[in-house]
Amino acid sequence: MKAEIIAVGTELLMGQIVNSNAQFIAQRLNEMGLSHHIQTVVGDNPERLIAVIQQAEQRSDIIILTGGIGPTRDDLTKECLGEYLNEELVIDSESLENVKASFKGRVMVSSNEKMAATLANGDLMPNDNGQAIGTVIEKNQHLYLIFPGPPKELQAMFRNYGQDYIRQWLNEDLVIKSRYLRFFGIGESLLADKLDDLIRNQENPTLATYASDYTITVRITASAQTQEEADGLIADMIAKIEAIAGEYIFGEGEHISPAHALQNKLKADHLRIAFAESLTAGLAADLLASVPGASAVLEGGLVTYSRQAKQRLLEIPKDLLDSEGMVSEACARAMAEKTREKFASDIAVSFTGVAGPDSLEGHKPGTVFVGFAYKNGHTQVKSYHFNGNREAVRHRVVYAAYLELIN
Amino acid sequence: MKAEIIAVGTELLMGQIVNSNAQFIAQRLNEMGLSHHIQTVVGDNPERLIAVIQQAEQRSDIIILTGGIGPTRDDLTKECLGEYLNEELVIDSESLENVKASFKGRVMVSSNEKMAATLANGDLMPNDNGQAIGTVIEKNQHLYLIFPGPPKELQAMFRNYGQDYIRQWLNEDLVIKSRYLRFFGIGESLLADKLDDLIRNQENPTLATYASDYTITVRITASAQTQEEADGLIADMIAKIEAIAGEYIFGEGEHISPAHALQNKLKADHLRIAFAESLTAGLAADLLASVPGASAVLEGGLVTYSRQAKQRLLEIPKDLLDSEGMVSEACARAMAEKTREKFASDIAVSFTGVAGPDSLEGHKPGTVFVGFAYKNGHTQVKSYHFNGNREAVRHRVVYAAYLELIN
Repeated sequence: MKAEIIAVGTELLMGQIVNSNAQFIAQRLNEMGLSHHIQTVVGDNPERLIAVIQQAEQRSDIIILTGGIGPTRDDLTKECLGEYLNEELVIDSESLENVKASFKGRVMVSSNEKMAATLANGDLMPNDNGQAIGTVIEKNQHLYLIFPGPPKELQAMFRNYGQDYIRQWLNEDLVIKSRYLRFFGIGESLLADKLDDLIRNQENPTLATYASDYTITVRITASAQTQEEADGLIADMIAKIEAIAGEYIFGEGEHISPAHALQNKLKADHLRIAFAESLTAGLAADLLASVPGASAVLEGGLVTYSRQAKQRLLEIPKDLLDSEGMVSEACARAMAEKTREKFASDIAVSFTGVAGPDSLEGHKPGTVFVGFAYKNGHTQVKSYHFNGNREAVRHRVVYAAYLELIN
Repeated sequence: MKAEIIAVGTELLMGQIVNSNAQFIAQRLNEMGLSHHIQTVVGDNPERLIAVIQQAEQRSDIIILTGGIGPTRDDLTKECLGEYLNEELVIDSESLENVKASFKGRVMVSSNEKMAATLANGDLMPNDNGQAIGTVIEKNQHLYLIFPGPPKELQAMFRNYGQDYIRQWLNEDLVIKSRYLRFFGIGESLLADKLDDLIRNQENPTLATYASDYTITVRITASAQTQEEADGLIADMIAKIEAIAGEYIFGEGEHISPAHALQNKLKADHLRIAFAESLTAGLAADLLASVPGASAVLEGGLVTYSRQAKQRLLEIPKDLLDSEGMVSEACARAMAEKTREKFASDIAVSFTGVAGPDSLEGHKPGTVFVGFAYKNGHTQVKSYHFNGNREAVRHRVVYAAYLELIN
């Protein structure tokens, strides 16, 4: 059984947006074990769109269309599929009420009614994050699904309705479950290498790795007759992965970030943290604060970017800076200890080093010292050498420090 | 004359990466005034790739392929095009030397030689950011170009070599030039509305708008017989745009960020800056530091996330916090003034407000006060109300403060 994705929208051909919907759906199809060989992008042009649907039908069983169901004249995806399949479009009255309600007294032009349209012989898929409803129809041994273009609307509609239609149609009474392990501190190819035996012999569960934002995700997907059986298969696989590369795991969940994992850990331990940042210049505090709920764990921080700021704000002795340098274990130690004291926090973490592109005090870009000062008077300094450009170095050292605190 | 983009790579079908190459090339094709109606993604499968090339050829004149030219067995784009066109593949000896040199004494397996392959009757395109060379060939009234998959390699090859081949082939002796204006503080639809007359009547120069990272880019592209004529056309258009929406422009250049623009401005004025950050928690300092050269302008900053940190580190009087609240003009003023004093900087900027999702001190998410304290003793506080989620609010207020300093 093959699926195919057609994204409709002139804004994609203009390069105004990137086709993230294709990536999202591709991931879901892979989770469901569905093959998928082709993705197409076509503009809001009826003739070309219909030609593309025709070609797709010859290659694939499930045709997934995204975009072109908004209120403007250009939005014609439902109209084109209806015309091509010789199926009537109707306005769903309940959905139309929702569209009207969203105008809250403002004048609604009639073209907005289109957003409530569906194929008379198909089913509608509600839009939990917007107005334009989706539609699904089975015809001529094919399943056709139409989703909205805005990613938030598409994602909710796909997860909440679309994938059930696909499973039903596949006559799939298997349970499919996925879990996601998140890794930091190891390259994607090295991780794949370590997991090589598991990846080569994968059948059920299947494994897939993705790299993004300096971290790696491993997806484990199992299909089984029952929920319990699927859970068991996944748990066994996770145990094997943890035995091989557990030290690089910072959390579990598709959308968990290192900051998320750190916040959870600090909350669980009832600890409050402060940072002293030189090369990272606020990034460590910023990322932790980007996750809602940060006020329970984040006390604050000092960005001592210049030498003067280290002396004035952190009272690092001039002698120390002269003899040891700013990029040194001694400086990282003093920064962490002084910061913990000033903020009266349970932990303080300091960062000093070279982000690049230039060297500093004779140290190459990527050299970083990180200090960890604890309330009990204990302080530890770790040194790192990272590859990559300025932004890679700054992010990698922050994630390395987070990982140190999590594990 | 029509162009078409075919991206080759199973990692795209797996959803491991997003097809940003299609977006990049689409933007360049639009700049060149070339129509482009279809984009396709296909896996590393010779049969399907050849079928897609065949279809593309029936619709389009210029076929642009990306990906599948690396060293692995799966990488077969050049082989497939050669087979389809009945053209011989040859190894370019100079490029092979480059590939070998990149191994620096490590063992190179023979499959790496493929990266130096090109079509015997075509031209090779050098890879300025990697090893796998590109290739271009004109045959049967069509132009075929093959680029590498990694975005950095593709972008350099397209700009440095690819687009010249396309122009030559189009027999284009027109000069095409683009300039990019960058906007913040206005929504994309409102900006498009303001520029509506210019956009509707566009012919030469053409205008296009893109939104990303809370900012908007307007691209102005002119074609003309001479460089000077193109420059003149663009300059006239920019003058019109500035008259309409100049207050929202923070800089010029495709890749200039608000932080970049602020760094330039502070450097030009020989000013050093410090930040006091509550809800932004280091983001304002971090973004400024993300651009190389920050040490010339960034003194440092204080992240006073908790109430206690505001009292301990910035010595904000408890009375002030009790009577006015943390989210107040008075608090923003005190934070900015105290920070300027502590860092002995020329300017200090403070941020206090509500990022959300919860309200704080009765203020809704999006309410922010920003203080600007100057060395001459002058202090100004501006209040804002932003829409959007936590991350949108935090970024928007930082960019708003940057814009205030730039203009």
